[in-house]
Amino acid sequence: MSSYKEQKVKDLDYIFYPQSVAVIGANRVSGTVPHDLLANILKDDFQGIVYPVSPKERSIKGVKAFKYIVDIDDPIDLAVLVFPSSVCHLALEQCGQKGVKAAIIISAGFKEIGGEGIKREEQIKEIAKKYGISFIGPNCLGVINTDKSAQLNASFARKMPQPGNIAFLSQSGALCTAVLDYAQAKHIGFSKFVSFGNKADISEIDLLYYLKDDPKTKVILLYLEEISDGPGLMEAAKTIIAETGKPILALKSGRTTAGAAAAASHTGSLAGSDDICDAALKQAGIIRCDNIEQMFNIATAMAYQPMPKGNKVAIITNAGGPGVLATDSAINEGLELAKFSDETTDIFKKSLPKTANIKNPVDVIGDARADRYNVALTSALKDDNVDGVFVILTPQSMTDIETIAREICSVTKSFDKPVYTSFMGETDVAKGISILQEHEIPHYILPESMSRAFSSAYNFNENLKEENPPATVFDDTDITKAHSILNEAKKMGKTFVTEDEAVKGLDAFGMPVVENGIAHSEKEAADIADKIGFPVVMKIISEEIVHKFDVKGVVLNINSKEEAEKAYKSILGNVKEHEPNAVIKGVLVQKMIDKGKEVILGLKNDPIFGSVVMFGLGGIFVEVFKDVSFRIAPINHLTIEKMIKEIKAYKTLTGVRGSKSNDIASIVETIQRLSMLAVNCPQIKELDINPLIVLEEGKGCFVADSKIMI
Amino acid sequence: MSSYKEQKVKDLDYIFYPQSVAVIGANRVSGTVPHDLLANILKDDFQGIVYPVSPKERSIKGVKAFKYIVDIDDPIDLAVLVFPSSVCHLALEQCGQKGVKAAIIISAGFKEIGGEGIKREEQIKEIAKKYGISFIGPNCLGVINTDKSAQLNASFARKMPQPGNIAFLSQSGALCTAVLDYAQAKHIGFSKFVSFGNKADISEIDLLYYLKDDPKTKVILLYLEEISDGPGLMEAAKTIIAETGKPILALKSGRTTAGAAAAASHTGSLAGSDDICDAALKQAGIIRCDNIEQMFNIATAMAYQPMPKGNKVAIITNAGGPGVLATDSAINEGLELAKFSDETTDIFKKSLPKTANIKNPVDVIGDARADRYNVALTSALKDDNVDGVFVILTPQSMTDIETIAREICSVTKSFDKPVYTSFMGETDVAKGISILQEHEIPHYILPESMSRAFSSAYNFNENLKEENPPATVFDDTDITKAHSILNEAKKMGKTFVTEDEAVKGLDAFGMPVVENGIAHSEKEAADIADKIGFPVVMKIISEEIVHKFDVKGVVLNINSKEEAEKAYKSILGNVKEHEPNAVIKGVLVQKMIDKGKEVILGLKNDPIFGSVVMFGLGGIFVEVFKDVSFRIAPINHLTIEKMIKEIKAYKTLTGVRGSKSNDIASIVETIQRLSMLAVNCPQIKELDINPLIVLEEGKGCFVADSKIMI
Repeated sequence: MSSYKEQKVKDLDYIFYPQSVAVIGANRVSGTVPHDLLANILKDDFQGIVYPVSPKERSIKGVKAFKYIVDIDDPIDLAVLVFPSSVCHLALEQCGQKGVKAAIIISAGFKEIGGEGIKREEQIKEIAKKYGISFIGPNCLGVINTDKSAQLNASFARKMPQPGNIAFLSQSGALCTAVLDYAQAKHIGFSKFVSFGNKADISEIDLLYYLKDDPKTKVILLYLEEISDGPGLMEAAKTIIAETGKPILALKSGRTTAGAAAAASHTGSLAGSDDICDAALKQAGIIRCDNIEQMFNIATAMAYQPMPKGNKVAIITNAGGPGVLATDSAINEGLELAKFSDETTDIFKKSLPKTANIKNPVDVIGDARADRYNVALTSALKDDNVDGVFVILTPQSMTDIETIAREICSVTKSFDKPVYTSFMGETDVAKGISILQEHEIPHYILPESMSRAFSSAYNFNENLKEENPPATVFDDTDITKAHSILNEAKKMGKTFVTEDEAVKGLDAFGMPVVENGIAHSEKEAADIADKIGFPVVMKIISEEIVHKFDVKGVVLNINSKEEAEKAYKSILGNVKEHEPNAVIKGVLVQKMIDKGKEVILGLKNDPIFGSVVMFGLGGIFVEVFKDVSFRIAPINHLTIEKMIKEIKAYKTLTGVRGSKSNDIASIVETIQRLSMLAVNCPQIKELDINPLIVLEEGKGCFVADSKIMI
Repeated sequence: MSSYKEQKVKDLDYIFYPQSVAVIGANRVSGTVPHDLLANILKDDFQGIVYPVSPKERSIKGVKAFKYIVDIDDPIDLAVLVFPSSVCHLALEQCGQKGVKAAIIISAGFKEIGGEGIKREEQIKEIAKKYGISFIGPNCLGVINTDKSAQLNASFARKMPQPGNIAFLSQSGALCTAVLDYAQAKHIGFSKFVSFGNKADISEIDLLYYLKDDPKTKVILLYLEEISDGPGLMEAAKTIIAETGKPILALKSGRTTAGAAAAASHTGSLAGSDDICDAALKQAGIIRCDNIEQMFNIATAMAYQPMPKGNKVAIITNAGGPGVLATDSAINEGLELAKFSDETTDIFKKSLPKTANIKNPVDVIGDARADRYNVALTSALKDDNVDGVFVILTPQSMTDIETIAREICSVTKSFDKPVYTSFMGETDVAKGISILQEHEIPHYILPESMSRAFSSAYNFNENLKEENPPATVFDDTDITKAHSILNEAKKMGKTFVTEDEAVKGLDAFGMPVVENGIAHSEKEAADIADKIGFPVVMKIISEEIVHKFDVKGVVLNINSKEEAEKAYKSILGNVKEHEPNAVIKGVLVQKMIDKGKEVILGLKNDPIFGSVVMFGLGGIFVEVFKDVSFRIAPINHLTIEKMIKEIKAYKTLTGVRGSKSNDIASIVETIQRLSMLAVNCPQIKELDINPLIVLEEGKGCFVADSKIMI
């Protein structure tokens, strides 16, 4: 972590644990933000001292007010600004003079409104920089810290959440109010709760690093509307997860936002911004959620219960139908139904009625009371074949709902395995659900949510065990040469590199380009072809022509010198017809490689996440199925293997119906080199290797065509 | 509808609207099923007369009890049996003697427990048949009819639901209890509520026909664990939807149940039982849901609000983030954001604050109160470009939640367009949500659910408009010939038809088989090939060989008489080597068609739904992507067009990247003929046409290989 980051993390202590807080702009009008924020701090037993600052009032809510912050005698750690945006800069200037360490700027009317607001935001950033003030906001709801040594509610939220081990960071203030309301009803507690608004200074990344070392936080939730520093976010997440094992869950809106309209390459058109975001978050280990409910469903499982050590679940239910639904969802989520040991089966036989189903899902029958649930749950948890238990209840006439809930809580506490529950219904089961939630037993309305939460926790835990070596740096590469090719083209004002140059560039990074030469006459074409060995392919080289096939500038499968001469002539004729003004650099003669599987590799420079690497199967698979996978460079060989396996058509590479397996190892190495190229040549906007022809296992692969946009 | 069906529907009137009910087996022990059921009938203001029948008691709950049903003087319409299963037959026998019209058998201990129970179920079916008693159950929770002229709660559910226009039919009694609890909390009312248990007599199909003509029912919900009569269910659903426009929503468990282990054809292995169920329900117009919550989310939209006439929604929100999330989900569900008219935009400009976003999604800003919501909602509903409105609210400090809820209810009532809502949070918004629900404004916790419900309602309404002509019956077919081929093979104890016979069978139905002949010598092979014209394909014909390629029994691309002779020899040699005991019937010589797109057609006789037709693209698309579509025969050309368009690779048939479009019309006709074959030859277990080679538009298609299992 850079020292800049370290400073931010240190300053965040002034925000979460201030000894003294000044509320600048406080007033006496209940129902307004300046009043309610001060009232919140006073209401919730804040452990420091709060000073209202108001140009007009002598006191607010019985607490002495100061005209200006500089009038306060004590040193001030944190200033909360609830002034109109037009005068915020004046207040912040005074904070600087007073030596305030950190600020929360609640006020709206900055970057988010455009025009004047953008200027105002720049102004406050400058002042903050001048005085070394770290700040959250502007345009936010504020900050809540439930830690007993702070008990700070520096927000205008309607309520203070209960303490807990989940941290919530949100770019949207409005969503915070909904989340606080939702969480209260479900007895979900928070360690830290932050609305960070426009993130003009402190960003979600700074907050993440802070939470890494926060002993009160076990799970981190993040709501983002826009990511400004993709690589920074990824690095922060990776660091936190690797060093502490704290899961990070993110909800990122804007999934369907249309990407850039036109793209010159396959990679460009396939890599929509949300696909990249999806790939990047996953690569960083962040669990991306579809909505707030799903986020809390997974978060409570991870925050409250032990992580599952395996994927084998036992399902206990008092009704067959819901048991089947839960089984369906578990299988769909990649879980397995545990097979009970003989010992467990014996206990079930002895303790459950004859009509009970003692296989998994265990049906304790509609008239089951707490004793049966207790036996079933205890035995299942004791069984070594069981990694976790789902307990399902329907409110039938005999069902002693609350007693069952209490039994579940007490049994669960004695084991180090996760127990999740689903009490189906609403009113009748409400009290039972409350008991579960108060005792940190995750509860789900739907079996799907329960299974999803379990598999998320299980997969997260599995991923923690994975090795993550650095990306390989090959020493047989010629970075200088690649740079000179790209820079030369750039200097000449070109937007793409001609294929012969692209081939040289890829060659400089040790990628498997095929033997080739450039011909400037029929005879030269025939000679080069003869030297390379037949069959060959011939392609037009011209800076004006990007899509060579469209102008009939390509001839495949040339088998003799004669054919080569004919091909040269026909290519030149075609190009003259279709692109009369194109300046012809020559014709590329290349060894033809044809008996392999065609795959596509690509790069795209994404404005947020940097170099994106793409992999897919060629032709129809890319064009129709969009069956491709993405990662952000640099990537190591393990990640590359995963990305190759991720595409749906992966099986076709390993040999289907008698065909032999393709040389996957050679694809891995080519992508490793591509990743290195991406890192070293950020001037590449888009790159397609299409196709990369992959031969049988052990026989390598070859770049048959490539395109580089700069 | 058959007269048998008509009788069942008539008898159901005795179950839902009985003038007199006998509860056989009632007792005085509160908390037991027999007592609670009687208590429920008495509690809920039943409009008929109830007679407790108990061998032991003089009266129960103050109502005179009878020892036997035959002791009652009045005629009895409905008997409810809550006796132990072991004596149910005796009670039912007495019901018969008494002349009871219909019964509800609550008791468990029948088919569902196997063994003795199966016998007991057969026994009561016989007695019921003898006396002409229609009955619901056994093994069920009972029946509820909220209609004022009945007010019958003949169930042991904990509560009577409020009246409403949704009917709920469930195979699981336990799920009913959960649903009643869930629905009460959400103010969801029911017209009829039926737990039909083992459906030994009255099935979900009878109930569906009954509900078709029930004026109190607008939407029908169905929970099924097992479908016994697939075609009957489909026909019932189609009839109801076509005649009344009442939507039917189904939840069917067992999605992941593994299908039959091994299958001899592609079609067999691809058509898993749940895929078929999925296709069949969809084809019948039934909306299949993933869970109870989704079912009610969609049902309330359809039951409470007008059907959307288009897919253009306006989103009104007081917070940006949730507006973006709602937009994402709407686009994902195939909806469009309405573009407001100039008039609407002018009103927004005038009536909303300057900082408000007046484009769709309309952000009325965090401090919005009811007046702003009113203006935005009214103007959006007035706008002809808007087909429906989503209203989103987050509970911010200024938000007058309940007033806004009331305004939404009153504005919505004046328009004939659907309005759905999402008040985010839980406790603070609870009262507002209740107001909405009481006024039949659908409310959703998540924007996804709101969008899903809207698109379900929209698509259902669109489907109602579609034509549905009967499947074409071709008169150039020779059904007798096809039958004789299949029956001949069957008679000889074969499990499959050899290719030459299969080709004749397909030819009999006018399918485009290619010219061919069977050779029994090298010379004959050469002559046939010469007559057909080169190139040809040659394939071994033997009853012992199903997979001809595996024994190298196929040679492609034969271009001369010489090559034909050589091929004949090599095929016989290969087959002798790989299958020395196979009896060789000859070698099929067939015109080779090679310049088309390969698709696969198939049939599978499903035990529940009958003949399933499959369509997909050949090769890798079927094997790796499982990119296929299913329908139940018979199917008309419109359905076939849909099924062709449904596969992901459809685009490749219409010509991608310069290749010409394939002859889709010829595929449609071939599938029409295949559907006719399926209907006429139910003895076919599985059939693969793989590949059907499809040429360019106007040039037709050809059966290149086929396989029929009987």
